[in-house]
Amino acid sequence: MIKRTNRLSHPEDTVVRVGGDGCEAVDIGGGSLVVIAGPCSVESEEQIVGIARQAAAAGAVMLRGGAFKPRTSPYEFQGMKADGIELLLKAKAATGLPIVTEIMSENHLPLFENVDMIQVGARNMQNFELLKALGRTGKPILLKRGLANTLKELLMSAEYIMAGGNDRIVLCERGIRTFEPYTRNTLDLSAVPALHELTHLPVIVDPSHATGRADFVEPMALAAAACGADGIMIEVHNDPAHALSDGPQSVTPAQFSRLMQKIRAVRAAAADDGGAEAGALL
Amino acid sequence: MIKRTNRLSHPEDTVVRVGGDGCEAVDIGGGSLVVIAGPCSVESEEQIVGIARQAAAAGAVMLRGGAFKPRTSPYEFQGMKADGIELLLKAKAATGLPIVTEIMSENHLPLFENVDMIQVGARNMQNFELLKALGRTGKPILLKRGLANTLKELLMSAEYIMAGGNDRIVLCERGIRTFEPYTRNTLDLSAVPALHELTHLPVIVDPSHATGRADFVEPMALAAAACGADGIMIEVHNDPAHALSDGPQSVTPAQFSRLMQKIRAVRAAAADDGGAEAGALL
Amino acid sequence: MIKRTNRLSHPEDTVVRVGGDGCEAVDIGGGSLVVIAGPCSVESEEQIVGIARQAAAAGAVMLRGGAFKPRTSPYEFQGMKADGIELLLKAKAATGLPIVTEIMSENHLPLFENVDMIQVGARNMQNFELLKALGRTGKPILLKRGLANTLKELLMSAEYIMAGGNDRIVLCERGIRTFEPYTRNTLDLSAVPALHELTHLPVIVDPSHATGRADFVEPMALAAAACGADGIMIEVHNDPAHALSDGPQSVTPAQFSRLMQKIRAVRAAAADDGGAEAGALL
Amino acid sequence: MIKRTNRLSHPEDTVVRVGGDGCEAVDIGGGSLVVIAGPCSVESEEQIVGIARQAAAAGAVMLRGGAFKPRTSPYEFQGMKADGIELLLKAKAATGLPIVTEIMSENHLPLFENVDMIQVGARNMQNFELLKALGRTGKPILLKRGLANTLKELLMSAEYIMAGGNDRIVLCERGIRTFEPYTRNTLDLSAVPALHELTHLPVIVDPSHATGRADFVEPMALAAAACGADGIMIEVHNDPAHALSDGPQSVTPAQFSRLMQKIRAVRAAAADDGGAEAGALL
Repeated sequence: MIKRTNRLSHPEDTVVRVGGDGCEAVDIGGGSLVVIAGPCSVESEEQIVGIARQAAAAGAVMLRGGAFKPRTSPYEFQGMKADGIELLLKAKAATGLPIVTEIMSENHLPLFENVDMIQVGARNMQNFELLKALGRTGKPILLKRGLANTLKELLMSAEYIMAGGNDRIVLCERGIRTFEPYTRNTLDLSAVPALHELTHLPVIVDPSHATGRADFVEPMALAAAACGADGIMIEVHNDPAHALSDGPQSVTPAQFSRLMQKIRAVRAAAADDGGAEAGALL
Repeated sequence: MIKRTNRLSHPEDTVVRVGGDGCEAVDIGGGSLVVIAGPCSVESEEQIVGIARQAAAAGAVMLRGGAFKPRTSPYEFQGMKADGIELLLKAKAATGLPIVTEIMSENHLPLFENVDMIQVGARNMQNFELLKALGRTGKPILLKRGLANTLKELLMSAEYIMAGGNDRIVLCERGIRTFEPYTRNTLDLSAVPALHELTHLPVIVDPSHATGRADFVEPMALAAAACGADGIMIEVHNDPAHALSDGPQSVTPAQFSRLMQKIRAVRAAAADDGGAEAGALL
Repeated sequence: MIKRTNRLSHPEDTVVRVGGDGCEAVDIGGGSLVVIAGPCSVESEEQIVGIARQAAAAGAVMLRGGAFKPRTSPYEFQGMKADGIELLLKAKAATGLPIVTEIMSENHLPLFENVDMIQVGARNMQNFELLKALGRTGKPILLKRGLANTLKELLMSAEYIMAGGNDRIVLCERGIRTFEPYTRNTLDLSAVPALHELTHLPVIVDPSHATGRADFVEPMALAAAACGADGIMIEVHNDPAHALSDGPQSVTPAQFSRLMQKIRAVRAAAADDGGAEAGALL
Repeated sequence: MIKRTNRLSHPEDTVVRVGGDGCEAVDIGGGSLVVIAGPCSVESEEQIVGIARQAAAAGAVMLRGGAFKPRTSPYEFQGMKADGIELLLKAKAATGLPIVTEIMSENHLPLFENVDMIQVGARNMQNFELLKALGRTGKPILLKRGLANTLKELLMSAEYIMAGGNDRIVLCERGIRTFEPYTRNTLDLSAVPALHELTHLPVIVDPSHATGRADFVEPMALAAAACGADGIMIEVHNDPAHALSDGPQSVTPAQFSRLMQKIRAVRAAAADDGGAEAGALL
């Protein structure tokens, strides 16, 4: 049996449309590059709406922000939960950006009704009951690779969602666990061409979580653009030093704006085959 | 703040009592060694009751068996689910052995009412919503270390359960993911003394999942007994060649019986400080 | 004590000059990007001179080629040894390209007298006696990161060479060993900005050994160019299907030529800060 | 071609005889268990002779001690070198224990003429020129597994020695590099049964380097004895707090003596098949 995620079963790239209902429609996959930006955690209306406006002005086409936060310790900030989703929806209304935010339990699905794309975090990549529930939703799903999961396991988790009837899946490389302590995780960029070979599903890259270091986000985001990622998700915070989570890996809106320009230029250069295709990108 | 799992907060070993209600009571922790045995998956009444009887005869004091099975692929056998739990309860009634079986979603909790100990599998070690729900149950929990989780992360996951008010937790080392392909995972036995240093919670070892090889179960089970594990969980199947899951790592009841004798002898030898303590073991 | 490799001891980038004596001089480090190309192994005069000419025509500024080959098995092709170095010198004479080739023992040093840059392979990164001997040579050294060595260990190995009085060292990221089997190793591109932060020594990237796959060389080479590498080393073979070693990861001269154009474009885009710096690159 | 290290080429266990010339003869392999003890580094005559006497009195049958020390940093103590070997030979003369010490370059071989067993350290496991040189010596070789090398790579390195005509090889598991920071490395005890299946060569275990913790040496040494290792190598120091290297992982002679008793008891228990074989062990 050829699996549903296998490129042999669907030779063309899948393009996942996100949003379009009360906000912009964004297409992920098929050769273009989308940038998703926003804070690790939603902290207040002012914070999330402000960052959303600045991210949109710089060229981001989607807004990220955590409402339910999976934290290693039960004593760390766990997110604003339902209130955080409400604030994301306000930011969406204010900017027209579709939103993506993480789910931690199938029981929270009713809260995600107006969320444009539902993220499955690395720690839940093999939470199969959650995957099955998402397979029944028809919503766009952003499926992050687990900390120590192979590409084939990532595809089998996508297969759980597709087996339920939902093929609107975007995969995300976000760093894997290795012996190297200098970065938070090790960003495995070869996952991008590898997944493009194995599957028709789009692949985006999260350099913020992978490196855990704001000053490494630019070089790794540019590398992701150069190697053919279908999207890049970047943590942007207006005040990283006081962020409630992941401040050290967040760039400021000003840094993000400069980075967007470079991302565009690098992608155009990488995709240029003698000029013929350049116009189609970004 | 000293965390609840930290040995500093509870210098003596925690002893977790399992069962006692319609079956034998088993104490895990505190220096003795318990052996849990049973098939990877419950497959039929005849299978599970038969194995339970043989395991009990050989000296196992608890029965394991999967009813909800987390499988990498959605197309593999997913377990007998609620029916599997019913069959485990029949085996419990037939043998007096308390049962332990894995849960995959907090929504399945009502089915686990008569289960003596609830297992959290490696893939769900950081399914924090599930951990929180288990913290509210008061049931003994068998918390398996994630495939690529550090000992401190394992303890923080236990902390989620304890923070909810449930301190009846047993930790389980079941192999970690490394670069070595010869075994399914790499059994990290130094986790046993390390966890005994870090925490007061009992620690058991699962050599079957760690190695993935029936012929490596005996040496690794003996090693676990020698290094001070509070328990060993061993997959036993009456017909490994036809098991619906994990046949290659299952030992037969006859092999298990012989292994139990060796486990007892090794543990007595390892624990013997000039004769004084030997009588207290096993 | 601030170590010699530490950027604090030498805030500006070190630029390592290679060649210049009977061949072109190549400067590695300081913001520009050099490309080194050639076959895994030297196989014949026709092969190495032919590839050298094609590589030079496409824009490579140095020639690589293995004469002493460290192979996992003693029964695999071990390289042409001294004869291979002679052929590299012929290719150097024919093209003006400086050459880099690997050393496996300090006892072979006399054979390397006319070699422009001496490579220490991943397996010998902590062969300290070899490092000490190279520290006494004054020759440019290409020091590859070991398969499972941290960045700090890589720097300590460079420190062995510098402690001997030789500061002409170029570091090379060539993939690390992880649990992922789809690629030969996992290319850790975040090592590039990390090393640039930690040390003043130049850093190059070897996408060929890292991925083990010819079709992944282009995306990973472009990613290396985008994230600021000081150089890229690419395996090029005129007939990959019949190469005596590492054929599956070698690109053809035609593929290499096209890739060089893209590398230049991507690097110019990544380095462009509003136009001011672009002219200085490549 | 069936390789020389493969058990198919030599179904019986290889027994490697060490010493016998001016000291005791020790046989490694074939079902018995030998214990090698001594300090990480040779520091003085008084130190090494004193430890050797105490180790012998406790039951160790070989003496270890580093003279050439591979250290990550060039600024750390590099060993007493030739003088260290002289002191080891004095300790051998004083106690009758054969000695094992590490070699770092084939150029040092003349200094090892009276050394009974030559150790290849983890960092040099793939220093193929050194392995080839050792293949020509006919001396017993203790080949340690590299930090991140697979069992098959370890066997291929042994194959380099055997291909040169020397089959007196003992393999050593000493911990592998993983993501877990709590122990220095992760001791892979399943390597013992795995290597016993793959090869006829003896396998010993080094719990001291694997764990890096004196208090974990006992449980891991007992585990090694239980799972069938042909030997255990333990770092013993008369004054761990002031050792020039690896003090934190060294046990005292008194601790070692107590541990030896437990090792004997555990091994006898693990090997006992109803009493028939017990007499033959230890």
